Amino acid sequence: MPSSLKIDESVVEDDAAYPITVTLRHLTEEEATPKQSSTSANGQGTQDGLFRSNLAKDDTQDLLDASKINARANSEEVIHAKYMIGADGAHSWTRNQIGLKLEGDSTDYIWGVLDIVPITDFPDIRMRCAIHSADCGSIMVIPRENKLVRLYIQLTTTNQKAGDNSSRADRSKINPQMILESAQRILAPYKITYRKLDWWTAYQIGQRVGTSFSVLERVFLAGDAVHTHSPKAGQGMNVSMQDSFNLGWKIASVVKGHARRSILKTYQSERRRIAQDLIAFDHKFSRLFSGRPAKDVMDAEGISMEEFKAAFEKGNMFASGIAVNYGASAIVAKEGSSEEQGDGTDVSVAIAKHRVISDQSLCGGITVGMRIPSHKVLSQADARPWHLHEVLPSNGRWRVVVFAGNTNENQQRDKLWKLSEAFSAPDSFLNLYTPKGARSDGVFEVLLIHNAPRQSVTVLDFPEVFRPFDEIDGWDYNKIFVDDVSYHEGFGNIYEALGIPQNGCIVIIRPDQYVSYVGSMEKTAAVNSFFAGFMKEQHVPYEAQPNGTQV
Amino acid sequence: MPSSLKIDESVVEDDAAYPITVTLRHLTEEEATPKQSSTSANGQGTQDGLFRSNLAKDDTQDLLDASKINARANSEEVIHAKYMIGADGAHSWTRNQIGLKLEGDSTDYIWGVLDIVPITDFPDIRMRCAIHSADCGSIMVIPRENKLVRLYIQLTTTNQKAGDNSSRADRSKINPQMILESAQRILAPYKITYRKLDWWTAYQIGQRVGTSFSVLERVFLAGDAVHTHSPKAGQGMNVSMQDSFNLGWKIASVVKGHARRSILKTYQSERRRIAQDLIAFDHKFSRLFSGRPAKDVMDAEGISMEEFKAAFEKGNMFASGIAVNYGASAIVAKEGSSEEQGDGTDVSVAIAKHRVISDQSLCGGITVGMRIPSHKVLSQADARPWHLHEVLPSNGRWRVVVFAGNTNENQQRDKLWKLSEAFSAPDSFLNLYTPKGARSDGVFEVLLIHNAPRQSVTVLDFPEVFRPFDEIDGWDYNKIFVDDVSYHEGFGNIYEALGIPQNGCIVIIRPDQYVSYVGSMEKTAAVNSFFAGFMKEQHVPYEAQPNGTQV
Ligand SMILES: Cc1cc2nc3c(=O)[nH]c(=O)nc-3n(C[C@H](O)[C@H](O)[C@H](O)COP(=O)(O)OP(=O)(O)OC[C@H]3O[C@@H](n4cnc5c(N)ncnc54)[C@H](O)[C@@H]3O)c2cc1C
Ligand SMILES: Cc1cc2nc3c(=O)[nH]c(=O)nc-3n(C[C@H](O)[C@H](O)[C@H](O)COP(=O)(O)OP(=O)(O)OC[C@H]3O[C@@H](n4cnc5c(N)ncnc54)[C@H](O)[C@@H]3O)c2cc1C
Repeated sequence: MPSSLKIDESVVEDDAAYPITVTLRHLTEEEATPKQSSTSANGQGTQDGLFRSNLAKDDTQDLLDASKINARANSEEVIHAKYMIGADGAHSWTRNQIGLKLEGDSTDYIWGVLDIVPITDFPDIRMRCAIHSADCGSIMVIPRENKLVRLYIQLTTTNQKAGDNSSRADRSKINPQMILESAQRILAPYKITYRKLDWWTAYQIGQRVGTSFSVLERVFLAGDAVHTHSPKAGQGMNVSMQDSFNLGWKIASVVKGHARRSILKTYQSERRRIAQDLIAFDHKFSRLFSGRPAKDVMDAEGISMEEFKAAFEKGNMFASGIAVNYGASAIVAKEGSSEEQGDGTDVSVAIAKHRVISDQSLCGGITVGMRIPSHKVLSQADARPWHLHEVLPSNGRWRVVVFAGNTNENQQRDKLWKLSEAFSAPDSFLNLYTPKGARSDGVFEVLLIHNAPRQSVTVLDFPEVFRPFDEIDGWDYNKIFVDDVSYHEGFGNIYEALGIPQNGCIVIIRPDQYVSYVGSMEKTAAVNSFFAGFMKEQHVPYEAQPNGTQV
Repeated sequence: MPSSLKIDESVVEDDAAYPITVTLRHLTEEEATPKQSSTSANGQGTQDGLFRSNLAKDDTQDLLDASKINARANSEEVIHAKYMIGADGAHSWTRNQIGLKLEGDSTDYIWGVLDIVPITDFPDIRMRCAIHSADCGSIMVIPRENKLVRLYIQLTTTNQKAGDNSSRADRSKINPQMILESAQRILAPYKITYRKLDWWTAYQIGQRVGTSFSVLERVFLAGDAVHTHSPKAGQGMNVSMQDSFNLGWKIASVVKGHARRSILKTYQSERRRIAQDLIAFDHKFSRLFSGRPAKDVMDAEGISMEEFKAAFEKGNMFASGIAVNYGASAIVAKEGSSEEQGDGTDVSVAIAKHRVISDQSLCGGITVGMRIPSHKVLSQADARPWHLHEVLPSNGRWRVVVFAGNTNENQQRDKLWKLSEAFSAPDSFLNLYTPKGARSDGVFEVLLIHNAPRQSVTVLDFPEVFRPFDEIDGWDYNKIFVDDVSYHEGFGNIYEALGIPQNGCIVIIRPDQYVSYVGSMEKTAAVNSFFAGFMKEQHVPYEAQPNGTQV
């Protein structure tokens, strides 16, 4: 367990330095796995989530103190690190160490959760639904495996200063029976009871977000450590994982020496903005949940069920990440101010000549800043259908996808060969920013999606940049795709779905599948400029780079 | 390893007896895991499949002899068993013990197999294809994971008596280089070579099938132990697994005391017929493979590529088991002679009044004797789409599926309630053949698929036989389905696809998903008769049954 954290601010901009020092204290096996708490319900012990829930006191300091007086008291380890991520939950020790604050509402909500096998005459109990009673509050129903159903009920609220432990709710008053009785009141006239209680918990939560997401882009916070919100929209885990997904590839590419440190600022700009938007949405959603349903369309004070439904749907978009649209920055080439489109941080390109703007109007179905939508494409080599997202695995590589149109037409074929020449030139992004001696697709993967009839061409008809040759492995067969009908899984129709023009386009896709840039096939210079804005030229072979591969 | 096998013929028809005695001899860890053989190719050792392949001598006796002279020499174990399955491959020790013979062709084929990462200008190398050269034979190309491609080449044939080890091919002449050279000749003018050889083998195989598949329905043979054929259609593993799949549930239901021993005869009747059909097909297919391709349509001696393609497609049907159509028997209620439709064994119902014939014309898309085709249906309780096959897991249960049509119509609703009364009566199959005290769906699962609009009804609107109630688990929500459009996965349209009439029908499905019976909703008596033909009435509670649950 960490016991101290220091940052040497004088070397934070030095790529080779290890500015972070963390001291770890070893816990015994026993200390490291404290007992789960359990409740006696229905005459049998049932695990509850009160252990380390937000209703229990934070036990980090107790654990550290306890470990000092035991046999291995002095067993400590000191770690020097380039980067550190505090994904240590709502009580975040890291956040406290670096002195970052959460800001937001002063109200905390108390929620009760039951995992039961319900016995009920409510016919929709196996549907994911929300039940809004006339005046006993509302309930969220989440059907699970093995006939289990999870019920979420907001029990009460408490007014307190954010982070003030003293005013926590009196947890002894909350037990499964009390949560069940709330559920019964809300569900009436339907009846609900249970004989099997699998798990239950109660927890307290506020709507708050960190003022900053990192210290000097060396120590970062992610997940519940830096934003908390109600469980209503089921966002916590989704948004938290997306934080780390956003941050992971950025740190990796800086540590590997591929990208400059400047891209790290985009983490806060992109993710803090999302957390802010989510909390705004959560505020509205919470009001819809706790309010009284409207009696009829004339009842202005009540909550309209139409509005409720619309908010529910928006929540699903949030959860799946499909609604996210990252603002302009060095890694998202679009119009407008990076400060306004993000959380206020300036993340634009430092050198004006590297500023590139996408031709957003080129493809109606691709929005720069959003994830590229997935449709099926066929591998040219074996005719197998793949979802586009399947061929963009999150392995840290950038993708430059060339939609070349019908390459049986002279014009498109000529453009494709010219583009390939530019991509293969000594001063192209591919050659400047890929370390010498690394795989040719180690940093950038150049993919082709054409729409000439599949059977009219073969892999060997296309430029070698799309099918690099390896002495031992032969040609690469996984970079050329075609928009044509598959044998068994229908027609993906990606050109039509994404609105790709018949004269083609180039799309740059980030390692996390968000679109950085869209432009015409002729604009190979723009692609070079885009990467010049944040990538590092590679002069020495990969292996020989100082500290090139260590974290 | 087994060293002897005896069958006490005097008690084979006694359900409680253990007529089989097998003696096992313990091998040491070392003896039990003999070294794989490997070849030096390309300067590095590569595992080959010659270890225990059909080109090597059978080593069972050597292993047994060796184990006798080692320290644990006398460590033997004697097992008394009700049933035994010999799935011990082409050299089957079990087959030799019980003295069963394979009959068939006297020609053996020698095949070479290479698993390589090919370096080639042949553009279809990532396609599953067959290449037929003008006069150098043919090759099968099977693309695999990690850029590997498997090549199958028939190298030569050998005339020998079936099972005569002395005339085995001279294996020392076969090596990866020799197989590659064959491939190069066949593929010319394209070139092929490799730097990575992952695995290779050569083996010898004939086309033979056992004269019988069991001794007294106590010791059974399955898989390569009882039929062998060329690898061209990739059938060996598929057909072998389907043997055991066919046999497994039958033995289990006899051992559990649910069904009478008479159903065990259907194993040979069904599976030996399949093996015979497959070998007939394999003969034809082999000729197509080794013959010279036709030069043009006028070349009557050459092999027509159209014919070749048709045979290839038929092979795929075989492999997936979709083409299988089991003949009439006690467990397949259809017209015709069981001897003619099977391998000659009489497997018809013993007592005439239990003979039931399906109304095969009722549903165009369901063929009695074949697997029921799968289409998507929605769960009434939660609107989730399921493939029909997903709700028919192979857990040994029979399914009685009631297609009730639109139960909002009075006529269909009345028929459904009458049917439910019959199914719930004390003398129904459900009550006669389900052991007292077992789960109500432990032997038969009664499923409903209606096509009233999903939102117009709820689970609780249907008879309880389709949603049994349990004091602890509440209602069963997984037995009522509806043919309606799903939220995200389209419309399964199962009524239309299977040609279910609007006045509904009853379909009985075996534990292995093959259809036993189709009849109208009114014919509940036929369902009772069908099961009376081979099930055992249950008088004592499940637990108290003598030997009821042991194998
Ligand atoms: C009852 C309940 C139901 C929920 N349901 C949903 C839902 O349906 N969908 C959804 O998206 N979200 C849901 N959430 C929210 C979701 O659980 C959280 O948002 C998510 O777990 C946050 O992930 P995290 O990794 O940031 O933090 P956590 O999951 O809290 O992980 C932090 C980890 O760090 C460890 N840790 C803490 N301090 C230290 C230390 N000093 N040293 C070492 N390790 C430390 C902790 O032990 C813990 O393992 C729910 C939350 C609750 C309480
Ligand atoms: C090179 C090659 C490629 C093939 N490719 C395909 C293909 O693509 N598709 C396909 O469907 N089929 C293929 N086949 C055929 C397929 O492998 C066989 O049909 C299938 O393995 C038969 O299964 P089985 O269980 O009956 O026998 P086996 O797989 O031979 O299994 C028998 C087992 O019993 C064990 N055994 C034997 N004697 C004893 C004993 N006395 N005591 C204890 N254990 C014993 C053996 O060690 C072995 O594990 C291929 C075969 C070969 C040789």
